[in-house]
Amino acid sequence: MYSDPSNNWPKPYYAVIFTSKRTPADEGYGIMADKMEALASTQEGFLGIESARSEIGITVSYWNSLEAIKSWKNNADHMMAQRMGKKVWYEWYHLRISKVEREYFHYMDVPIDEINLQKG
Amino acid sequence: MYSDPSNNWPKPYYAVIFTSKRTPADEGYGIMADKMEALASTQEGFLGIESARSEIGITVSYWNSLEAIKSWKNNADHMMAQRMGKKVWYEWYHLRISKVEREYFHYMDVPIDEINLQKG
Repeated sequence: MYSDPSNNWPKPYYAVIFTSKRTPADEGYGIMADKMEALASTQEGFLGIESARSEIGITVSYWNSLEAIKSWKNNADHMMAQRMGKKVWYEWYHLRISKVEREYFHYMDVPIDEINLQKG
Repeated sequence: MYSDPSNNWPKPYYAVIFTSKRTPADEGYGIMADKMEALASTQEGFLGIESARSEIGITVSYWNSLEAIKSWKNNADHMMAQRMGKKVWYEWYHLRISKVEREYFHYMDVPIDEINLQKG
């Protein structure tokens, strides 16, 4: 999942960087992860979320204030998921709260497939 | 690749959040990505790097100052890679420079395999 690349969020905003190493245990992880992503997106102050997983997982969620991040941390359903995360799903995780100070966006003008077609 | 989970970096430090969508074009991407990760880690002020790729890619690199980030941005070999990234490898990318204000680490006390063995 990724946030709208054409976003134009008010500055400053905050990024919560969650990096993790999963255990081999499933125990409903996928269902809960989807549920938490959906629930986060309904919270006051939520701006967007981006995630990827290969050897490790990285999820970055974006918020308009530290208060919004704190409220989400203390959300009852989210707290239950956090407990499962600590006990079952994550060998380790790091969570970093950071303030976004600068940003740069790049979009390729022409998709690469089109370039190839034009060449052919 | 991921940074040492037992790190204890001086505060404040900075996170460069690079999220991207790849084009189907290879053109030496893997070799260059590995080379850039190795080169970044030799730069003054570099602290660590974490990356994952599935539908999108997310790489977070950590630095001890904004000056160190700027120097890395202007590194000659890195600038060449940036040009290739814009022209060939990335359909889009977002780069966010953020200041880490708080962090939390969690490590599971006992690996899940051991727990299962103890149960059995």
